Order: sequence, then structure tokens, then C-alpha cells
Amino acid sequence: MSFSPLVRQLMDALRVLPGVGQKTAQRMALHLLERNRPGGIQLAQTLLQAMERVGYCQRCQTLSEEPTCAQCRNAQRDDSLLCIVQSPMDVFAIEQTGYQGRYFVLHGHLSPLDGIGPEDIGLPQLLTRAQEPGVREVILATNPTVEGEATAHYIAQQLSTLPLVLSRIAHGVPLGGELELVDGGTLAHALAGRRPLISPAN
Amino acid sequence: MSFSPLVRQLMDALRVLPGVGQKTAQRMALHLLERNRPGGIQLAQTLLQAMERVGYCQRCQTLSEEPTCAQCRNAQRDDSLLCIVQSPMDVFAIEQTGYQGRYFVLHGHLSPLDGIGPEDIGLPQLLTRAQEPGVREVILATNPTVEGEATAHYIAQQLSTLPLVLSRIAHGVPLGGELELVDGGTLAHALAGRRPLISPAN
Repeated sequence: MSFSPLVRQLMDALRVLPGVGQKTAQRMALHLLERNRPGGIQLAQTLLQAMERVGYCQRCQTLSEEPTCAQCRNAQRDDSLLCIVQSPMDVFAIEQTGYQGRYFVLHGHLSPLDGIGPEDIGLPQLLTRAQEPGVREVILATNPTVEGEATAHYIAQQLSTLPLVLSRIAHGVPLGGELELVDGGTLAHALAGRRPLISPAN
Repeated sequence: MSFSPLVRQLMDALRVLPGVGQKTAQRMALHLLERNRPGGIQLAQTLLQAMERVGYCQRCQTLSEEPTCAQCRNAQRDDSLLCIVQSPMDVFAIEQTGYQGRYFVLHGHLSPLDGIGPEDIGLPQLLTRAQEPGVREVILATNPTVEGEATAHYIAQQLSTLPLVLSRIAHGVPLGGELELVDGGTLAHALAGRRPLISPAN
């Protein structure tokens, strides 16, 4: 009753954003209305453009408003490496490491209980992509969760007949933490995947 | 580099929202693009409409897309009470209490150091409004902060020559808390403002 209909509609509409509840939506709506109308208009216009024009890259399936994305168009990158991730956010994360190969972005992970099968996450396209000339190694960089591991395992099976190196990103202790805070499963992986620092000469 | 230009623009635009940093903006943008495009379009359209059409009520200065807001148009409400608050959110909060009088919404609080004087928060309009026939009591419900108290004090001085009852909302211990957690200033107010429960008959 105490907000006008349009202000109330705006508060409701803001709740489509993840992590935004009633109180936060009220605060956002009033902030834009009282302090930053140009910013609000700018947001509305960009949002509308993005929702209507951003699609998926034909080659790697990441979000892109062009038919192929910047990474796929870039002739400088290494065609022999193909890194498989679960979302465009993961491309962003891996780009920070200086990786220079190509990507393939799955639409999420396999989840048979939710009815999400290989076709839904784009595995047929991946099979075609992995057979393109030049690809030598496929790096499975799905999340280190149960679903991510299962998806990586399934993809490895599908690609096992192709003449490719298949690899999985390493599991182990993250940098900068303390060993006593690391869970047992991770620590077991870190031990099993240990690497020699100095090998005695035979 | 790893998001397309339009996706990056959307992430930047989302940062006008209060409390939204880079990571949250990325999550929001990808959530809308990958999971809820109709919701995103709806948000964009509502936002644009609200930014362009919502103005201020001519009588009480709250946010409204009509020349006068619903509370001011409602003939059932009590014209003799005028409650002064700092923002449209406060109207929402006071409406929950069942208050049936009228409102006047200041545009914030006085802040001489920031160059915000009486004209900026709409005090001349308040003076005119308080002199309308029918008003008997003005309730000062600015925030119980230093700035809110100073603003209330200033308004009280300005209105003191008018034939009106001036009141300030009570300070005291909030319901449902524990006394030991209440700060000293609040407790002093609660003691000074104590009320008799039973008065012995003389």
C-alpha cells in the first residue's frame, strides 16, 4: 500500500537477480530512484540489449553476441589444446592463468535425476569439435564436485576412441592455506598426486 | 578479454546497484543470460518505465508516478496528524504499525558539511504543508541518529510559532531484546521516558 504501483513493480522485478530478497530489492529500487536515475536508465538499456543480442558462440558455446567469440577468432591461440569447462565464468577464471589454448563451454553438467543428458549440455557438438584437425590434447576442467567429476568421466569415455591425449586438471591442496584446514579427500588426492622435487641420479 | 563486449557492459552496468561488486555483478549477468532471459527483459522494461515516470508526490514528496500519492489521495485518513520522515522506506515502515495519519517525506537529512541545507530536503514545502487547515499535530519521525535528531530539532524550531502540537517518536528499549545488550544512551532515554503502570489513588 505504501509504495506506488510502479515502484512496487520495480521492487518485484529486481528480485529476479540471484541473492536479492525483498529488503535488498527495496534498497536497490530506492537507491536508483532517489540517487542514480541515469545509472538506472543505462542499466535498463544495457540489460535489454544483452538479453536480446547475446547468444552462444558457434564453435565453443560460450556467451557471445557475435557468431564466434573473441577466443575462437583469435588466430594466435594454440589450436592443439582444448579446455572443457562448465560455464563462461570458468573461461574467465582460466584466462587469468595465462592459458593460451582453445575452450569448449558445456551448458552445465550431466544430471540424469534432473533430466539433463548429454545433448542438453552440448556433448554432440563437443565430439565434433574434438575431431577437428589440430586438436592434440583435451583438458577436462569441469568442477571438482561429484557432478563435475561424473561429467568429466563420461566425456573421457566418449572421447577415448579418438587419437587424443585426455587430461584432467590436478586435485591437491590450494595455495596459501593451512594443511590442517584441508579436507581428507583433497589431502588424499594431494598425496597420491605427489611429484618428485629431486630425483637421485641412478 | 574473456567475456564478449556486451556481456562485459552488462556486468559494469549492474554495479550501479548498491552492494553489488565485480563478482556479484558477474554472477547476476550470467544468471540472467543463462537461466532467466524473460525475467531480465521484464526487469529492463520495468526499470526504464520507473526511471522515466516515477516522480515525487506534490503534497508529501514521496516517490509516486501520479501527481499525488495514494496516501495523500485517500480521503479516509486522518488529516490532523502529519508524520515527518526522511525517506519513502520510512513511510513503508510506519505503515506497518497501522498509523492512519498523513506523511511528509524529507529528501534526506540536513547536513551543512555536505552543503545540504533546508531547501535541499524540502523544508519550505513542509512549512506550507504544516499550515494547511486541519493539521493539529506534527510527529517528527526522523531517524534516531545524530543527523536525524539535528534535523528534528531544526524543524521543531521552524514550526514552533505555529499553533500545532509538535511531538517526537519515543526513544527507549526495543521489544524482544535483552537489557544488557542495549547501549547506555538508549537506556538513559528509556529511564527518563518511563511511564506509570499503576498510580495509587490519592
